[in-house]
Amino acid sequence: MPVPQLTEAEREGVLASLPEWTLRADSLAIEREFKFRTFSEAWAFMARVALLAEKQDHHPEWSNVYNRVAITLTTHDAGGLSERDSKLARAIDKLLA
Amino acid sequence: MPVPQLTEAEREGVLASLPEWTLRADSLAIEREFKFRTFSEAWAFMARVALLAEKQDHHPEWSNVYNRVAITLTTHDAGGLSERDSKLARAIDKLLA
Repeated sequence: MPVPQLTEAEREGVLASLPEWTLRADSLAIEREFKFRTFSEAWAFMARVALLAEKQDHHPEWSNVYNRVAITLTTHDAGGLSERDSKLARAIDKLLA
Repeated sequence: MPVPQLTEAEREGVLASLPEWTLRADSLAIEREFKFRTFSEAWAFMARVALLAEKQDHHPEWSNVYNRVAITLTTHDAGGLSERDSKLARAIDKLLA
């Protein structure tokens, strides 16, 4: 089932409420990079994000190099950003609060 | 401590013994992509690779999108491929054997 894409006004609101995230150049995704002390700490964070993603049935595009994790959120079923992305981003931010 | 880079002959031998892996265009890394049925299965595989990586103290550059995992192995301390990469690649292949 298609998911509604955020309107431009909604997108601005989401970005204002998620100051650590940046809009990708094509406006179809939001991105955030994380840096930890070690791979072990980065992995522990990823494990928690994996559980959030599975629970929300919404999964990140992400990469890891040693102590760094880069996360991109987009909704394929919406062809861009949806409320699913802002919800997952907020939950990820909470892990680090 | 610097790690010796594989010689060209050693590299050829490693590639011959790891048929699922391909040499990156710049010859400084090997890469393999994996596809699973679900995110859960992809994540389970990643968890096992994370343990191997930590045990070998050699970590992949990797990314995940839902059921797909892409792994790049290179040795920064060697400025390219080393025996550490072939060792980790072999251990990863064993997980799927």
